[in-house]
Amino acid sequence: MADVKVLVLLMFTLSVTCIRAKEKPPNFVIMLMDDMGWGDLGVFGEPNKETPYLDKMAQEGMVLPNFYSANPLCSPSRAALMSGRLPIRNGFYTTNDHARNAYTPQVIMGGIPDEEILLPEILKDAGYRNKIIGKWHLGQQPQYHPLKHGFDEWFGAPNCHFGPYNNKNTPNIPVYKNAEMVGRYYQDFVIDKQTGESNLTQMYIQEALTFLEAEASSGSPFFLYWAVDATHEPLYASKPFLGKSHRGLYGDAVMELDFGVGQILNKLMALGVAENTFVFFSSDNGAATYAKTHGGSNGPFLCGKETTFEGGMREPAIAWWPNRIKPGQVSHQLGSLMDLYTTLAKLAGQEPPSDRVVDGIDLSQALLQNNVVDRPILYYRGNELMAVRLGDYKAHLWTWTNSIQEFNRGIDFCPGESIANVTTHDQVNNTAQPLLFHVGRDPGEKYFIRPHTSEYKQNIGGILSVVEDHKKHLVPGKPQLNWCDNSVMNWSPPGCEKLGQCYKGPPSNPQKCVWPH
Amino acid sequence: MADVKVLVLLMFTLSVTCIRAKEKPPNFVIMLMDDMGWGDLGVFGEPNKETPYLDKMAQEGMVLPNFYSANPLCSPSRAALMSGRLPIRNGFYTTNDHARNAYTPQVIMGGIPDEEILLPEILKDAGYRNKIIGKWHLGQQPQYHPLKHGFDEWFGAPNCHFGPYNNKNTPNIPVYKNAEMVGRYYQDFVIDKQTGESNLTQMYIQEALTFLEAEASSGSPFFLYWAVDATHEPLYASKPFLGKSHRGLYGDAVMELDFGVGQILNKLMALGVAENTFVFFSSDNGAATYAKTHGGSNGPFLCGKETTFEGGMREPAIAWWPNRIKPGQVSHQLGSLMDLYTTLAKLAGQEPPSDRVVDGIDLSQALLQNNVVDRPILYYRGNELMAVRLGDYKAHLWTWTNSIQEFNRGIDFCPGESIANVTTHDQVNNTAQPLLFHVGRDPGEKYFIRPHTSEYKQNIGGILSVVEDHKKHLVPGKPQLNWCDNSVMNWSPPGCEKLGQCYKGPPSNPQKCVWPH
Repeated sequence: MADVKVLVLLMFTLSVTCIRAKEKPPNFVIMLMDDMGWGDLGVFGEPNKETPYLDKMAQEGMVLPNFYSANPLCSPSRAALMSGRLPIRNGFYTTNDHARNAYTPQVIMGGIPDEEILLPEILKDAGYRNKIIGKWHLGQQPQYHPLKHGFDEWFGAPNCHFGPYNNKNTPNIPVYKNAEMVGRYYQDFVIDKQTGESNLTQMYIQEALTFLEAEASSGSPFFLYWAVDATHEPLYASKPFLGKSHRGLYGDAVMELDFGVGQILNKLMALGVAENTFVFFSSDNGAATYAKTHGGSNGPFLCGKETTFEGGMREPAIAWWPNRIKPGQVSHQLGSLMDLYTTLAKLAGQEPPSDRVVDGIDLSQALLQNNVVDRPILYYRGNELMAVRLGDYKAHLWTWTNSIQEFNRGIDFCPGESIANVTTHDQVNNTAQPLLFHVGRDPGEKYFIRPHTSEYKQNIGGILSVVEDHKKHLVPGKPQLNWCDNSVMNWSPPGCEKLGQCYKGPPSNPQKCVWPH
Repeated sequence: MADVKVLVLLMFTLSVTCIRAKEKPPNFVIMLMDDMGWGDLGVFGEPNKETPYLDKMAQEGMVLPNFYSANPLCSPSRAALMSGRLPIRNGFYTTNDHARNAYTPQVIMGGIPDEEILLPEILKDAGYRNKIIGKWHLGQQPQYHPLKHGFDEWFGAPNCHFGPYNNKNTPNIPVYKNAEMVGRYYQDFVIDKQTGESNLTQMYIQEALTFLEAEASSGSPFFLYWAVDATHEPLYASKPFLGKSHRGLYGDAVMELDFGVGQILNKLMALGVAENTFVFFSSDNGAATYAKTHGGSNGPFLCGKETTFEGGMREPAIAWWPNRIKPGQVSHQLGSLMDLYTTLAKLAGQEPPSDRVVDGIDLSQALLQNNVVDRPILYYRGNELMAVRLGDYKAHLWTWTNSIQEFNRGIDFCPGESIANVTTHDQVNNTAQPLLFHVGRDPGEKYFIRPHTSEYKQNIGGILSVVEDHKKHLVPGKPQLNWCDNSVMNWSPPGCEKLGQCYKGPPSNPQKCVWPH
């Protein structure tokens, strides 16, 4: 009997020791910018060099200059980040027309499907506290909101800060604190479109710092998704940053976000949790070149947001993790925002779902050992695979900027840029003989490799195999971005009654959404 | 009598003390690249980030992202650097045609005039030992060579490494050791145009290290002008660097030069003279965009070499001086290669000549205190002032890329770029109403500020005053680049007889040089 007692005691002791020995998993901070371009950071060549905190973050961490979004538009890009899967799989695309960019405006009926297992849901299973600050964009209606999909806290909005609206034919966008709205853009959360002044970024910074302070001393690991949006039109910055930059309001917004990055990293260090916190900085899609000087810079890359040229999907990317990621490194890994899904899941000791295709790969080897893993990058636009990159070669299966009608209306995705047979205003099907580029020596996709050359012949095959393999196994998700309805707009979001901000919308009248690009 | 002795002794003591108190002036190293673009360095946004030594130099020193050459072509740019004066003053231009770029090919009759007081001549007066390694390009004939204009040593050539020639209608370019040739490109100094292999950069690196070793322990300060040319077509790199880059042969050449920069800085540190050596890295003009993937990158800037758009004259620039220039700084100073003339002269305790206009300003304040001095940048092409920058505003008085005839022959200075009324193929005179750009928020010169706006009205006046003032006081030098003659080519350079390499040229037949661009 005594022996049994000893055994039980021993087992108990061992078990406690094991629990103690099992390290607390790392915290995560993903800083996702909105329409910020690869070329908007000093470290990536912005000529005014006005991002000292990001440049320092890069010096202290790892830069990934070959990092991509899964889509050249915000909603699908963010859905892919959260689900680890291409929009064609998670439903964030449209079949209303061929190769059209679609997103989640207020009228959208769809959103992130319940079947998708989002990153915060995986992390929640590992005991994480999850917070999103800023723009969600995975659906407007409450069933699609962050707290229904794994987040514990939210301060931000389901949409971009468009407006002001009149609350009659269009309601102002609600801002949420967790599951209930706490006001609306313009009427409660001021953005002065004349001066560009708004305190929103300061609020998002403060919200992050408060969360970090609260979580740092708790027993649980945390995941902060800092999805700020000051670089999305209409641009804004707080008073101390207005006019501070050499780049106008866009640059002011960048400087304030850069300041926020510095505040967050400094806070992690001050709280003593930096060495147990993996931080990643990136952006949701290329800079909105059509916004001219109100948009950002894609550096040496072709075109911008909405396109599958490098300017549309190559993103700034910096990984930071003191004492885990060595300072001053550059990784040539081809990376994707979707990789954060798998990487963070693994770092948290979890496995990504095995019952479905997950497109994100585990970047731990790249980040921690600076090894490069071969993998392709797929450039989707709506329901079409437009291009594929493998190594330094990129093949365009389809080329398109936008229609000549839209272009003639003044919407130019490639201002000042024009490359014959590349920046086409027709949707050109090149699948029979893809346009091949070497994006190492030709990052601007200006000089296609002629099909009769041995270089073409030696490199097109691998890409075509990737395409074939991908298409063979692809099971497209149910498209979520086909139907729009004025009645589903943010007329009466949860919490509106407490604020006296419940408005009456029109009766339901679902229509196919119109996606011009 | 005793009093006189005491007085003499006292005077002697004072005199010795004064000599001791006068610090040895700093050493100088100017590293001037050839056709390397602003966007070719990792620190300036090259996407493959293959310049670790330059990026480190930038972290340890000061980056000047608003730094310009005095001309978009090599010879005039280098003549301006050496003389501190615009090519229109020092004679490095042509009047054969309007606004034409001219340089010093083998047939050129002119060269740097004796009346110009070059930087090494000023430094020589202050006791410096001066060495140039690499490309001179201030005249082919012996009277124009470096040792006739202040340099003590030379290893390099008067010309680009064009060739191979047949020594019948064109001689191969001679390579000099000091005042005499020691061989010729291709026949003695091998460049394999098939593979791109050449050891030239390694020779230029070794030559620099040997010089530094010899000079470091001498009592005199030194000036090393490291004018390497591997990034000028035909590109070359040594075997260990061939294929090393993601960017092809151009990138291989950049990596080898970057390695050389690292070797030189490390040597200065190892020799213990780094803290007394001011090092500046830059390039002679924008990347040769017409060379397509055999040319470099001008980052987000418009067009390239040969043009007065930003891509033609904005240069990479890094200043490095341990314990004098604080690490990690960015200076918004508008700088020019000509400023190195005045800055180095002043740092050496000398005064630039007062009997003529010197365009270079003293950058000491910018470099040592990070203060910004207001000054304009003048963009000349041949005999025409094409554009002026003041603050963040740039006005184009003239626009021109090249003629439609040259363009139709396939010579494209702005590949993939086309901006209406800006990248013109006619020489367009905008002096009555200059095209105004804000190069801070619009570095690509895509969006001109409309003349009816208050922004235009507020900012054009200052620029027009600069133009008026400049033109009022301008006394153009005698043009040196008007006349060409096959007889002056490098048939029988000094030293050729020792090598059995004296060739017979044709009789003299001076003709006006043809400058197509």
